[in-house]
Amino acid sequence: MRNLEVTFVPGSLSESRIKDKTTVVVDVLRASTSICTAIHNLCRQVIPVAEPERAFELREKLGSDNVLLCGERAGKKIEGFDLGNSPSEYGRKTVGEKTLIFCSTNGSGAIVKCRTSPETLIGGFINATALVRYVNTGDRDLLILCSGREGNFSLEDSLAAGMLAAMLQEQSDWNLANDAAKAARLLYNNYSPRLEEAVRECDHGRYLGSLGFGEDIGLALAVDSIGVVPVLQEGKLVPA
Amino acid sequence: MRNLEVTFVPGSLSESRIKDKTTVVVDVLRASTSICTAIHNLCRQVIPVAEPERAFELREKLGSDNVLLCGERAGKKIEGFDLGNSPSEYGRKTVGEKTLIFCSTNGSGAIVKCRTSPETLIGGFINATALVRYVNTGDRDLLILCSGREGNFSLEDSLAAGMLAAMLQEQSDWNLANDAAKAARLLYNNYSPRLEEAVRECDHGRYLGSLGFGEDIGLALAVDSIGVVPVLQEGKLVPA
Repeated sequence: MRNLEVTFVPGSLSESRIKDKTTVVVDVLRASTSICTAIHNLCRQVIPVAEPERAFELREKLGSDNVLLCGERAGKKIEGFDLGNSPSEYGRKTVGEKTLIFCSTNGSGAIVKCRTSPETLIGGFINATALVRYVNTGDRDLLILCSGREGNFSLEDSLAAGMLAAMLQEQSDWNLANDAAKAARLLYNNYSPRLEEAVRECDHGRYLGSLGFGEDIGLALAVDSIGVVPVLQEGKLVPA
Repeated sequence: MRNLEVTFVPGSLSESRIKDKTTVVVDVLRASTSICTAIHNLCRQVIPVAEPERAFELREKLGSDNVLLCGERAGKKIEGFDLGNSPSEYGRKTVGEKTLIFCSTNGSGAIVKCRTSPETLIGGFINATALVRYVNTGDRDLLILCSGREGNFSLEDSLAAGMLAAMLQEQSDWNLANDAAKAARLLYNNYSPRLEEAVRECDHGRYLGSLGFGEDIGLALAVDSIGVVPVLQEGKLVPA
C-alpha cells in the first residue's frame, strides 16, 4: 500500500516532506490547466519561475527567439509579457515549438518549491485519468500539493486533489495518510454532483468571473480533455 | 448579515485581514482547551508567547511568585516549565490566581499573530455555546483562525470551526464568506455523527495518543463543558 498525502497550501512545505515522494502540483484555476494545455499543444517546454523579475532575466539569457513570457498577477497578464494565464491563449499556433517562461501568482511558485522532489508532475481535472495512470505505474508515496490562493485554502484545488485521490484508490491500494487527504476526498465526494457550480461560486471562480475569465473555468473543469502529464526535468516542464 | 471567514493555517494571515474583524483562535488539541480550562479555573490571566525564550524572559521580568510557565514542544512539557499543555494539569489548585505564561507549538503563535485584531477570542468544542452567544451579541465580521499543526491543515480544528459556523448560523444570519468556511461547515456536517472517532484518528489525535495523552482528546471534545470565553486584552487572556 502506498501513502497519499495532500497539502492545501504550499507555505509550510518542507524539503524533507517531499524528498522521497512523487509530488503533483495542482492549480486548477489556472496554472495546471494552462501548462497542460501548452504541453498538449506541443510547446517545447515550460519553465516555471516564482517572480516576474526572474522571467525577464531568463528571457534575457535565452534570447527572445521562440521564447514567450507567460503569466499573471492578480489574474491579469503581466506588463511586458506575451501571454496571460488563460488556457484559451495557449493554442498550437501560439505555443507550438516555443519555450514558455511561466510565472503565475500561486502555481508557478508551488512548482518551484518542489524542485527537490524526485518527481514533480502537474495535475488538474483536465488530465486526471492520464495522471492517475502514470502515478499508478510508479512506486513512490505521493504528495498532492494544492497551490491554493495567496497562501489560503482554495476549494477548487482541494476538489481536484479529492478527485485524484478517489481515482487513485479505484485503481490501486492507497492509504489516505494525512488529515488533508481525508478532507479533500470527503469534500470531493460531497461536491462532485455539482462540481461546476461549486467551482464557479468559490473564491477564485468568482474573482475570475468578475475579470471576464468565466470561460476558463469551463476549460479547467473539462475532465480528461487532455492526455498529457507534465513532469519537471532540470527545472523544465516537458511531457512525461 | 455578517460575514464569517475561516483560515485553516495561520501562516498567511495578514494584518489587513483581521483589522476590522473579531478573531476566534481555535486549537482544539490542545491550546484552546487548556487555556479555557485555566481561565475557568480562575487563573489570573494567560499570557501567550510564541517562543519558549520569550516565556523565560517574561518570567524574569514578572518574577516567579504566582507565575507559571506552561506549554509544550512536540507535545511534551518544555524543559524548565512548570506545566505542559494537557488540560488535565490546569486544575483550580494549580492555576487559581496565578499568571500563566503560555507557549505551545501552534496555538500560542496563532494568538500572538492576532494582536492587531480589535477582538481576539479563544474557542473550541468545550466553550462552543458560550462563544457563539458572545459573538452573536457583537456586530463585527468574524474570522475563525484554525491553528493547524506545524503549518498544516488539522482536521480537528476545521471540525470545531465548522461546528461554530453551524451554531452561529442557527442563531443568527451569517454568510459563509470564503472557501475554507464552506469547507469547514461541510466537513463538520459529515463528521459530526462520529466526531470522537474522527479526532482520535486524525494526525494530531494519533500523535497525542502515542504520547499517552489520549484522555486529553476526551477533554477537548467535551462540548460545552466550560462556559468561559477568553478574550485577549493588552496581550493577556482574561474572561470576556
